[in-house]
Amino acid sequence: MTNQSVIESLVRQAVRGVLQATPAAGVQPPGWVDGKPNLRVSISARHCHLTDEHVEILFGKGAKLEPEKPLYQDGFYAAAQTVMVVGPRRRMLPSVRVLGPTRSHSQVELALTDSISLGIDAPTRHSGDIDGTPGCVLVGPAGTVQLERGVIRAARHVHMNLHDCQYYGVENGDLMKLVVKSPACSVTFDDLLVRADEAAKLEVHIDTDEGNACNLEAAEQVELQKQTDSCKCHG
Amino acid sequence: MTNQSVIESLVRQAVRGVLQATPAAGVQPPGWVDGKPNLRVSISARHCHLTDEHVEILFGKGAKLEPEKPLYQDGFYAAAQTVMVVGPRRRMLPSVRVLGPTRSHSQVELALTDSISLGIDAPTRHSGDIDGTPGCVLVGPAGTVQLERGVIRAARHVHMNLHDCQYYGVENGDLMKLVVKSPACSVTFDDLLVRADEAAKLEVHIDTDEGNACNLEAAEQVELQKQTDSCKCHG
Repeated sequence: MTNQSVIESLVRQAVRGVLQATPAAGVQPPGWVDGKPNLRVSISARHCHLTDEHVEILFGKGAKLEPEKPLYQDGFYAAAQTVMVVGPRRRMLPSVRVLGPTRSHSQVELALTDSISLGIDAPTRHSGDIDGTPGCVLVGPAGTVQLERGVIRAARHVHMNLHDCQYYGVENGDLMKLVVKSPACSVTFDDLLVRADEAAKLEVHIDTDEGNACNLEAAEQVELQKQTDSCKCHG
Repeated sequence: MTNQSVIESLVRQAVRGVLQATPAAGVQPPGWVDGKPNLRVSISARHCHLTDEHVEILFGKGAKLEPEKPLYQDGFYAAAQTVMVVGPRRRMLPSVRVLGPTRSHSQVELALTDSISLGIDAPTRHSGDIDGTPGCVLVGPAGTVQLERGVIRAARHVHMNLHDCQYYGVENGDLMKLVVKSPACSVTFDDLLVRADEAAKLEVHIDTDEGNACNLEAAEQVELQKQTDSCKCHG
């Protein structure tokens, strides 16, 4: 590395907050690789979250969620169980995966394509923000739950820990953007909400429509940027 | 208007090529409203194009496409007819709209979400560029066609006439980008191919995944920009 490029590298690191964010010696923040954040972009296919009570109604007295596949975020998992989600006019999705652990409110997260095929007008909301959202019927092998609300199109977001926050110069609740370079279908997604806590690993969650719009599987580059980096160029 | 804003307006017009692009007095280019381009963004749901021969095989000897609904581009229409598209492993889409007029090659255009549900790995291609693409089976009321190739995920593009080209400072074959501002899910789509001819009206075509990724129906603003306007800011 030339002197010039060392300086540039240091300036870039400083701008990105790396120098301040460098964890204490020997501390590897969750999800970091080789001393820096390791961006993962995950597609959340349609899924639901259930309360303990609803698990018992749908799957039988005493039933618990059975962890089948751990998710990237520690402690979360795809359960062995699925439910049928039924919309108005008897349209339905036969097999929607349940994610664990259980929550205080049941919630169904769909891509807009799913919600259109189901005939439910699902608003774009962040997880847990379900006031005034439409409901649906959940059908399991042991019973049925009429959800009064909780069907949303999950707004895109990025999980990160506090070291990641420092690295990117953002705080919990800020908005970021994700630049995806894919052959013939590159996309920049704005409005990624930062959900930060001590333990999270850096992970963007987009839905299947978003993942397919940019053909994420074929992507050659993904980059996370502060929303305020967005340019004001107009042609 | 103050002198300053008149000057700014003239500069902006000049930068955008409006002055050069202004059509001769009394000439209104196709699709223009009040002397300027009128951007339309349309979502192309899955559909197919057929040859005359395939129309007869699928719908009966002597059958013709029946125009049911004109599309925005003059001379093009959604036909009354639909076909079933069958993929490998007997998965199928029961009712895929045929668009007219007929073409020299049959072609099926799917969103990636459709192609995943059908089990066909449809590459992102521009219309007509079907060498090496996968095929499928088309089923109509009178017969069946085995397509050897022609299943694509249509690459996003923008139709425009030559006055629109001058207005935006682009040529046939250039790439542009589309900025969509939507509540909680704004998106910038890169890689829109300019398809220019004398008669086209300004219209961006994106697929259902792309339209749902940005919730186009809820969009508050759409803007078409030269791809070279893309910013090089990095956080």
